[in-house]
Amino acid sequence: MRIVVTGAAGFVGREVCKHLLQRGDDIVGLDVNGAGMAGGIRQVIGEIAEPSVRREIFAEPCDALIHLATVPGGAAEADPAASRRVNVDAMYDLLVEAAAIRPGLRVVYASSIAVLGDELPPVVDDQTPLSPRMIYAGHKAMMEHAVAMFSNRRAIDGVTLRLPGILARPKGPSGMKSAFMSDLFHALKNHEPFECPVSGSGTIWAQSVKKCAENFVSAVLIDSALLPASRTVTLPAIRTSMADLAEEIAVQCNAPAGLVSYEPDKSLEAAFARQPMLRTPAAERAGFAHDGNRANLVRNALASI
Amino acid sequence: MRIVVTGAAGFVGREVCKHLLQRGDDIVGLDVNGAGMAGGIRQVIGEIAEPSVRREIFAEPCDALIHLATVPGGAAEADPAASRRVNVDAMYDLLVEAAAIRPGLRVVYASSIAVLGDELPPVVDDQTPLSPRMIYAGHKAMMEHAVAMFSNRRAIDGVTLRLPGILARPKGPSGMKSAFMSDLFHALKNHEPFECPVSGSGTIWAQSVKKCAENFVSAVLIDSALLPASRTVTLPAIRTSMADLAEEIAVQCNAPAGLVSYEPDKSLEAAFARQPMLRTPAAERAGFAHDGNRANLVRNALASI
Repeated sequence: MRIVVTGAAGFVGREVCKHLLQRGDDIVGLDVNGAGMAGGIRQVIGEIAEPSVRREIFAEPCDALIHLATVPGGAAEADPAASRRVNVDAMYDLLVEAAAIRPGLRVVYASSIAVLGDELPPVVDDQTPLSPRMIYAGHKAMMEHAVAMFSNRRAIDGVTLRLPGILARPKGPSGMKSAFMSDLFHALKNHEPFECPVSGSGTIWAQSVKKCAENFVSAVLIDSALLPASRTVTLPAIRTSMADLAEEIAVQCNAPAGLVSYEPDKSLEAAFARQPMLRTPAAERAGFAHDGNRANLVRNALASI
Repeated sequence: MRIVVTGAAGFVGREVCKHLLQRGDDIVGLDVNGAGMAGGIRQVIGEIAEPSVRREIFAEPCDALIHLATVPGGAAEADPAASRRVNVDAMYDLLVEAAAIRPGLRVVYASSIAVLGDELPPVVDDQTPLSPRMIYAGHKAMMEHAVAMFSNRRAIDGVTLRLPGILARPKGPSGMKSAFMSDLFHALKNHEPFECPVSGSGTIWAQSVKKCAENFVSAVLIDSALLPASRTVTLPAIRTSMADLAEEIAVQCNAPAGLVSYEPDKSLEAAFARQPMLRTPAAERAGFAHDGNRANLVRNALASI
């Protein structure tokens, strides 16, 4: 298959491209710069908000579009206008153009559990109404409905995956407010102390980047009759407390005890570390999966750093 | 209170303004033309997509904004770009500007049951995921989340009301695909034959424009702590078959039997006449109401034409 991947040089994009290349797919990869993009990809370097760049990624026929390019959470908070321009306006243009070039194109869209907001009920499931607070989350929620609408009109054949925390990102600034989850892995792998900005009892939903990429490949191939009418599934995730996660990482990395201290930041705690019970029957019916258990999650996440 | 009403010359807008004037509120009314706007309103004539027009409606301090201006369903299908420009882009600008001028402004937004889509479960309630198909519906759904996001950030204090069929609209083209529901009232009131474009067994959710206006006034005044986290409520509605509705109208208008024939149009039937059971606990907790029963619905609807 020929697959266009936006955000192909990003953390998730690189892993998705790696899995697609292993399948033998042809990839057109878009990103603002090509550094980190896998070899064997036709690179398009530029801003997705540029019409000429979008024309270039659709210059040849393609079989699917995986849309990962985004202004991430922290960057969107700092520059809401940039988030609107990229995460809403450019993506809407992208969908309109995809539908014009190849009606019914499979489009896989990366949304986020952030769309659910901060005030979650004791159990989150496929029926939990959205209440985004972050700019990034509001924009992702808006575009979930654009994907559903265009799919219901058969303009595209859309699949929206709501991503939990994806582990473990590379070190350094990502623009993601949830980056602390990954930073914990780097610190413990290097046997360095880590000041965790959420409490040890704080609970997160997480998936390894490897499992995440497998889910994106499934989303390219899935029969959309298996999807709910909203075209949106919250991906299955391992729910773990930060303390239990830290302990498992330390065990697997032979790190000494006591490296992690907890200094909760109120807003990070509210946004990322109060994840209640999660039920994802729609995703499971459609064949999406989590890492199986906490040990596998940590093993898979460590393999990526 | 000083209240800005967009779409003030529209069917719902006129009735809302009438109720606000009776309360003694000062109204700034925006519409593309002033015809039909009640006396005693400070009129702003222009397109909401024009920045200068939006500046003018916010020229003086206000206590609430009721946002009714919209490219309606039929018009949006005919011109998706116009719907995007008005129903998404201009409204987003309006919210940003409202928040800048008066942070925490009460904004009441008219959404629509169309956001739920065509393929409804046997019972619709506050947890039913959205799956819009019409352009209008997709755009309304997108902006529900913008209202929630800005409210969660305390930029505005938003309330989204999802309107069912509102009865009875004036005769003539409205751009609303659901106008046939109102046309039935006009025909039977005038003892004229009516060819109904959905089946007699087709079921709709409806509310009189009088009750609808009362709900908008409630939404201006409500304590937002009574609202769900999504800031959105589906308004309570009377569920009736078209045949039962026609019979009740005929009785109240002393119309002879046999005036109504049914020639179902597949797409209108799917979009408007397969409304299943409706549960609206969130709206009821917040004090919103329907007309009580079918006879009252018809009585209130006939009073408006």
